[in-house]
Amino acid sequence: MARPMADKDQRPGERQLPFDPGSRIQAGVTFIGHLATPWRKGDCPKNLTEARNRGGLFQAVVAPDYRAGLEGLVAGDGIILLYWMAGARRDLIVQAPAHRPAPRGVFGLRSPARPNPVALACVRLLEIDHAAGILTVDALDAFDGTPLIDIKPWLPGVDNLTR
Amino acid sequence: MARPMADKDQRPGERQLPFDPGSRIQAGVTFIGHLATPWRKGDCPKNLTEARNRGGLFQAVVAPDYRAGLEGLVAGDGIILLYWMAGARRDLIVQAPAHRPAPRGVFGLRSPARPNPVALACVRLLEIDHAAGILTVDALDAFDGTPLIDIKPWLPGVDNLTR
Repeated sequence: MARPMADKDQRPGERQLPFDPGSRIQAGVTFIGHLATPWRKGDCPKNLTEARNRGGLFQAVVAPDYRAGLEGLVAGDGIILLYWMAGARRDLIVQAPAHRPAPRGVFGLRSPARPNPVALACVRLLEIDHAAGILTVDALDAFDGTPLIDIKPWLPGVDNLTR
Repeated sequence: MARPMADKDQRPGERQLPFDPGSRIQAGVTFIGHLATPWRKGDCPKNLTEARNRGGLFQAVVAPDYRAGLEGLVAGDGIILLYWMAGARRDLIVQAPAHRPAPRGVFGLRSPARPNPVALACVRLLEIDHAAGILTVDALDAFDGTPLIDIKPWLPGVDNLTR
């Protein structure tokens, strides 16, 4: 049975699960590094477009153990970063973002609050320092220090649905 | 210290980590459903393009607890599915896929074997049955039964790097 709608952290029309998905763990992730961004709580862009417009230094920092995994990546590549939105709640199954006319299911939103708080950003690699494990990219909309869990090449043949 | 290169599950030029990332877990995922595909071990397409060409019935099945999260999604939408490659090894940091001329770091490959075995597919939603939690999509290249961990809308303004 769901908790009542009057929850102080909930907007009208939002619905929460009767359990915390974070208490039903079936597999585990490890952090391979972190994101370095200008953003702190209360000052974070709402999305990647806003982050790109505001500008700044945006980097993914890969921990020493995992740096060999960067071999072959070069400046100019399109990449997909997956990162872990550690502070986000996981039980808001229907959400009412301020920019939307009506509430919407979490799977139709890019909200950080989701059953598995994995976020993704498709970005352009501007510069790569293989020895230091530093990837400078064109934009990031997450807090400074956000844990990184994966990097993948962005492939136009499969990742571009407008083709 | 890395184990020797002669590992029987390793190709020439491949390198493995001296530890299993799966033994250094820092956060947990829960399964929100599974993928239903025609593919079994030994008969799985190498990528989404091959899966699309071979054809078949491709579905993401969302568990009852999470179906409210689908509200607002409609046939025709582009979506991103994130799923968990449960059987893949996590320690191959440099890999030598048969289709590549030289070994390459795992973060430059879409291989299922990676420190965090989260795979993603950008696909077209052909049909959605909200009550049954079934999303029929245009292609999937994962084994039948692969655990699903997230669904996100694909957004042309941020997810298309050819723009």
